[in-house]
Amino acid sequence: MKLATLRDGTRDGRLVVVSNDLTRCTDATRIAPSLQAALDEWDRIAPDLAALGRSVETGSVPVERFHERSAMAPLPRAYQWLDGSAYLNHVELVRKARGAEMPQSFYTDPLMYQGMSDGFLGARDALTGHEDWGIDFEGEVAVITGDVPMGCSQADALRHIRLVVLINDVSLRNLIPAELGKGFGFVQSKPACAVSPVAVTPEALGDAWTDGKLSGPLLCDLNGEPFGRADAGQEMSFHFGELIAHAAKTRSLSAGTIIGSGTVSNKLNGGPGKPVAQGGAGYSCIAEMRMIEQIADGKAATPFLSDGDIVRIEMKDDEGHSIFGAIEQVVEAESSED
Amino acid sequence: MKLATLRDGTRDGRLVVVSNDLTRCTDATRIAPSLQAALDEWDRIAPDLAALGRSVETGSVPVERFHERSAMAPLPRAYQWLDGSAYLNHVELVRKARGAEMPQSFYTDPLMYQGMSDGFLGARDALTGHEDWGIDFEGEVAVITGDVPMGCSQADALRHIRLVVLINDVSLRNLIPAELGKGFGFVQSKPACAVSPVAVTPEALGDAWTDGKLSGPLLCDLNGEPFGRADAGQEMSFHFGELIAHAAKTRSLSAGTIIGSGTVSNKLNGGPGKPVAQGGAGYSCIAEMRMIEQIADGKAATPFLSDGDIVRIEMKDDEGHSIFGAIEQVVEAESSED
Repeated sequence: MKLATLRDGTRDGRLVVVSNDLTRCTDATRIAPSLQAALDEWDRIAPDLAALGRSVETGSVPVERFHERSAMAPLPRAYQWLDGSAYLNHVELVRKARGAEMPQSFYTDPLMYQGMSDGFLGARDALTGHEDWGIDFEGEVAVITGDVPMGCSQADALRHIRLVVLINDVSLRNLIPAELGKGFGFVQSKPACAVSPVAVTPEALGDAWTDGKLSGPLLCDLNGEPFGRADAGQEMSFHFGELIAHAAKTRSLSAGTIIGSGTVSNKLNGGPGKPVAQGGAGYSCIAEMRMIEQIADGKAATPFLSDGDIVRIEMKDDEGHSIFGAIEQVVEAESSED
Repeated sequence: MKLATLRDGTRDGRLVVVSNDLTRCTDATRIAPSLQAALDEWDRIAPDLAALGRSVETGSVPVERFHERSAMAPLPRAYQWLDGSAYLNHVELVRKARGAEMPQSFYTDPLMYQGMSDGFLGARDALTGHEDWGIDFEGEVAVITGDVPMGCSQADALRHIRLVVLINDVSLRNLIPAELGKGFGFVQSKPACAVSPVAVTPEALGDAWTDGKLSGPLLCDLNGEPFGRADAGQEMSFHFGELIAHAAKTRSLSAGTIIGSGTVSNKLNGGPGKPVAQGGAGYSCIAEMRMIEQIADGKAATPFLSDGDIVRIEMKDDEGHSIFGAIEQVVEAESSED
């Protein structure tokens, strides 16, 4: 089953069930007024949504064309966003870039932060800010959970995963060192994330979803050029069940909690990988690319995002069809000269 | 105007308008189904709620008895909780206690973290956990905002404050050092907060609300004994307008965002204060008391919370009437022997 939230002028949008090929959708608001409402009573509501989805496939209900550009984030506002750092290659590179240590515990205890969830950007919403902030994208996979009890085991946690999405976890690199230096995590340096147009149930992902991981290359493009092709199923040191269990150690998680994988990142022959242009899998954020340049050339060459840049994040199935639709954001940033 | 959310078996509860003396209330769900719904359209809805509140005072609408024990948190789940550290005496003491430095920037740049908001405890809900975690209370003041635009000024920010509440920002002291050491802030070490039974508009606070600060002693009791009497209007280094503007520097804040003051804490003659039993204003959390004991006696004597302990947090007006109702939580903790 694939679900989306269409822009209708309200804060929570209009819930639709989307065809598997993302071309058509049908209104689902008679079943649940919003995706949050569906998540609140998932066991009761999901079967009806799934039945409606089958009707979309068979053409037995009226449908409308589905336009990714009309989609808000599936949950335009959510009660919780916790982002893990499951791809340790990313953590190693980004910490190296800002001269921070990589503690041994990071290999066994997931790194995770509580991020803003009161407003997620739609997949085509502009990425706004100030160039001086060092705006960067981060391509990630995330899951949306049902209610998770405190102390939930890693295995049980997998059963609470309702939906899977892609996320652009926007980072303001130039604000991060000072803010993390204060010791209380990110507030100003992690503004609103963007979410893929469509949220997909684990079942509908088929073999690509195995043991709490999503396999396949995460296609990150910058200004139309391939920037990252890292496989989300490779080197994910903590699967989503582990990330959820970590989050739920001392508290329950409410339905609609979004848990992120952290930036998808692959090593190459045990090293930090190579840019796509050099035949590698590339990177799912600019910060990693800059670190690689620094290692290779003594200085970072790729700038962070500027006004007019276009970031695209997508994932395709074995037949080349987009699974979640594409995040494609134009940067609308005040320039450094202002 | 005073608002509360009564337990009714749903996630968002039932919105009521409460009399100023907290004895009576009346259903407000015909005006707005929930407090979040009211905040979403505050300018349109607040006048109707205020009119209903006046009718409660004059007895011109049917009322029911208001029981604090029936109240959920005013926002049982919220889209955002950002907690500042505006009382620097607290920051100095708690950091000293864990051997952390107090950077100069803390005196000019507010410290703030993004906390969990997907489930706030009601004022009488048990405080659960494991004694090994070092469960502590923190008495705080918080505001609930309307929509705040990105880049909002400190002065404008004050105009976006809709409601004021008290909060018990529960901290798991024994989990904090390792988690903060990872550099990404709190996840496991800050479980659900509890909120006062009633949320109050700034207007209804009268002179106690001035220039973005709430004045008056925050009454924190532990097992029926006075533990803290610190004045929330004293030594608040950043008023709520400054805290909101800090949060909104790189992003907008959605209606229903809760911004906390941090633990209320007063100095005494420039020093770290004295326990209530020694004639001082005491402390709004156990960690500060333990630090004082450490300074005076070389070791902390007051333990963190144990099973059966009772924490009470309240504030009274000049006539001795409770303003927000009382947070009063029994600790239900697994013991260390388990």
